[in-house]
Amino acid sequence: MRILLTNDDGIYAKGIEVLHEQLSKDHDVVVVAPETEQSAVGHAITLTDPLRVKSINRNETFFGYAVKGTPADCVKLAINELMKPPPDLVVSGINLGANVGINVIYSGTVSAATEGTILGVPAIAVSINTFRDPDFRPAARFTRLLVRQVREHGLPPYTSLNVNVPAISESKIRGVRVTRQGVTRFVEKFDRRIDPRENVYYWQCGSNPPLEEDGDTDASALANDCISITPIQHDLTNYDFLESLRSWSFPKVSDS
Amino acid sequence: MRILLTNDDGIYAKGIEVLHEQLSKDHDVVVVAPETEQSAVGHAITLTDPLRVKSINRNETFFGYAVKGTPADCVKLAINELMKPPPDLVVSGINLGANVGINVIYSGTVSAATEGTILGVPAIAVSINTFRDPDFRPAARFTRLLVRQVREHGLPPYTSLNVNVPAISESKIRGVRVTRQGVTRFVEKFDRRIDPRENVYYWQCGSNPPLEEDGDTDASALANDCISITPIQHDLTNYDFLESLRSWSFPKVSDS
Repeated sequence: MRILLTNDDGIYAKGIEVLHEQLSKDHDVVVVAPETEQSAVGHAITLTDPLRVKSINRNETFFGYAVKGTPADCVKLAINELMKPPPDLVVSGINLGANVGINVIYSGTVSAATEGTILGVPAIAVSINTFRDPDFRPAARFTRLLVRQVREHGLPPYTSLNVNVPAISESKIRGVRVTRQGVTRFVEKFDRRIDPRENVYYWQCGSNPPLEEDGDTDASALANDCISITPIQHDLTNYDFLESLRSWSFPKVSDS
Repeated sequence: MRILLTNDDGIYAKGIEVLHEQLSKDHDVVVVAPETEQSAVGHAITLTDPLRVKSINRNETFFGYAVKGTPADCVKLAINELMKPPPDLVVSGINLGANVGINVIYSGTVSAATEGTILGVPAIAVSINTFRDPDFRPAARFTRLLVRQVREHGLPPYTSLNVNVPAISESKIRGVRVTRQGVTRFVEKFDRRIDPRENVYYWQCGSNPPLEEDGDTDASALANDCISITPIQHDLTNYDFLESLRSWSFPKVSDS
């Protein structure tokens, strides 16, 4: 297959290099990734600034494009301009830090995968559950095997797989769970400071609580030393609430 | 009620000023909004830069805080730090340009409302379907009345209302529809250019196709001169696909 490989930690990150090495064993891989780290950009796209593009050779096999933009920008630009015909698959990662629970909505890694599916290309996002320099190889090898499954089964329209891998040795990983997005989230704290010119500023120092969820969530899988795979789509409608909301008496606009 | 008012067009935008004027008739309104326009930032949050905050008085009644950050940053900072106790309601808007269909995932306006619900505060996002200097008053008056309904009925946990108002006179608005998020999206085009130093760059010049959807979608409501109200939540799981995905044979991790 022809694979578009991207991430949000930037084209020079270790995670994308290790994943490139694994995926290149089976596939033709083109890297289009942000020039610099883009963590917590969510599904941002760049409309008011130009997107600068540079060709990059990290080593003899790792060739790609560094884009001054967000992960979603990279996928849009790759599919619409840089790769013709479009790729067969988008893979995003390997992200340093889990993307589970509510935090998924802040994730550039996952948004890159979502962007692929919006443009008609199936996609996988991969993250590892640590911010410390991990061994990315277990997650990269698993992804290589998962890509074969995706190729065999296909994915429904607008659907990507959000994969999270525990940061432990392969022999300690207890299995693979198909999960739903849980409710783990950053717990914000803001550190208030005064600059030398007496202006107020804050540092956002959010931290993630321990992964204590029960049941079939992404965070619970990680807490139990399992790989989690959550199928993700982009429709935010709260369908369960539609009927109840229809029973409200909305103001007639002429009243307003 | 105590209302947190924010937006993504920035604290100096016309839409937030008109909405402030209407909501202040019934409520105690505190404005915490980005210092500058933040369109298409999606659910980005600022982790690596400080959030600067300035007190602003736009006029005798419009008092607020301008934040050098995204709409989601504003809501986090307001609820955690600037407003104690937390507000009873978050209102985001009025955004210049509809937030319907797939485009909702790029919307700073909607993400501000979503952020409110994540932090336990019910929320409404309001947009008007034009980029040209409109009369914001019909949308602002409608929002004021809708706030009363939200106060009366409440909203389910993690749920906000995404409201889109046609840019036509009140007498031409044909009604209010409860809708789901449709599939309208930007159609990207990239304009390739070379700068004076021979570097390649692209302008993203996406445009929205006409609102031609049928059925009960947000875009279809606007196309039929109706106000759309879509209940929004943050869970991206594709529940319909969970069972089928569980039938895949995932690689044993020891194989990898």
